[in-house]
Amino acid sequence: MTSHEKYMQLALAEARKAADIGEIPIGAVLVCGEKIIAAAHNMRESWQDGTAHAEIIVIQEACKKLGRWRLSGCTLYVTVEPCPMCSGAIVNSRIDTVVYGCPDVKAGGAESIFNIITNPNLNHCAEVVSGVCEEECAQVMKDFFQRRRQENKARKQQASAKMNCCQEEKNRL
Amino acid sequence: MTSHEKYMQLALAEARKAADIGEIPIGAVLVCGEKIIAAAHNMRESWQDGTAHAEIIVIQEACKKLGRWRLSGCTLYVTVEPCPMCSGAIVNSRIDTVVYGCPDVKAGGAESIFNIITNPNLNHCAEVVSGVCEEECAQVMKDFFQRRRQENKARKQQASAKMNCCQEEKNRL
Repeated sequence: MTSHEKYMQLALAEARKAADIGEIPIGAVLVCGEKIIAAAHNMRESWQDGTAHAEIIVIQEACKKLGRWRLSGCTLYVTVEPCPMCSGAIVNSRIDTVVYGCPDVKAGGAESIFNIITNPNLNHCAEVVSGVCEEECAQVMKDFFQRRRQENKARKQQASAKMNCCQEEKNRL
Repeated sequence: MTSHEKYMQLALAEARKAADIGEIPIGAVLVCGEKIIAAAHNMRESWQDGTAHAEIIVIQEACKKLGRWRLSGCTLYVTVEPCPMCSGAIVNSRIDTVVYGCPDVKAGGAESIFNIITNPNLNHCAEVVSGVCEEECAQVMKDFFQRRRQENKARKQQASAKMNCCQEEKNRL
């Protein structure tokens, strides 16, 4: 197992914690040298905060722990390609390297829709490494959304059955 | 004075507070209906946090106050065009409208470098209104950087004078 894979497995453990509490399963780990500075997962629903993505949480935590906003010397591991907000935060924080698992073809800010992290117009570029534990990262997302679709379907069927039952009661009266 | 100008004046007051403490002078105000929910300015240096832009601070504060991550019905006023991080945060928070003062031609995420806020690929688009109190917003930035250049020049001259003085002392010995 490479060191990229080792840290991505920790990010995946975070992603699975998110799934367990009904959050979209994306996890992130921030490493400085060989040391893990912060690990987090998406908390949007739990905190009711649209900025509470895994990457923002680890960046804010790392700034607090290291006492500096320039996170040079740091590598950020995240299971899914960062969105535009998180890609911008990576640039703003001067992170050296971003390693992600699977792409986000609908909203990726690193490569899929925008090239924020490597854009030469901005005042910092980070190195981007993609496809680390890609299938596993994508599978965690697929499982989550499949389960959610099944739950929604079951909820609708229950509601429909309840309505039919009420209608039958009314017809009987 | 239009209502856009009225709220932008409050954002400008925030920007001036940032300048007073040595922060890049960008201010933001978040309004829901007619009510001001949050007002803040850039705090990157004071908090040593690369994500501590005025827009992120008002969004996080508004989420806390309103108890929801979907900031629909809200308008964000900011003195300078949002960067990619803040533009992404605006999309992620489902803000209806963004009103900004002057463009950021080097790193603007709304229109100048990227079109994150109005990009039809993403799952939300906000309306963008630009150029409100534009000259005043740009002037606050110009004044800040001009003062900083002067201070840096004075510091260099002082250091150079000190070195010359030391050299003269050495020559005398």
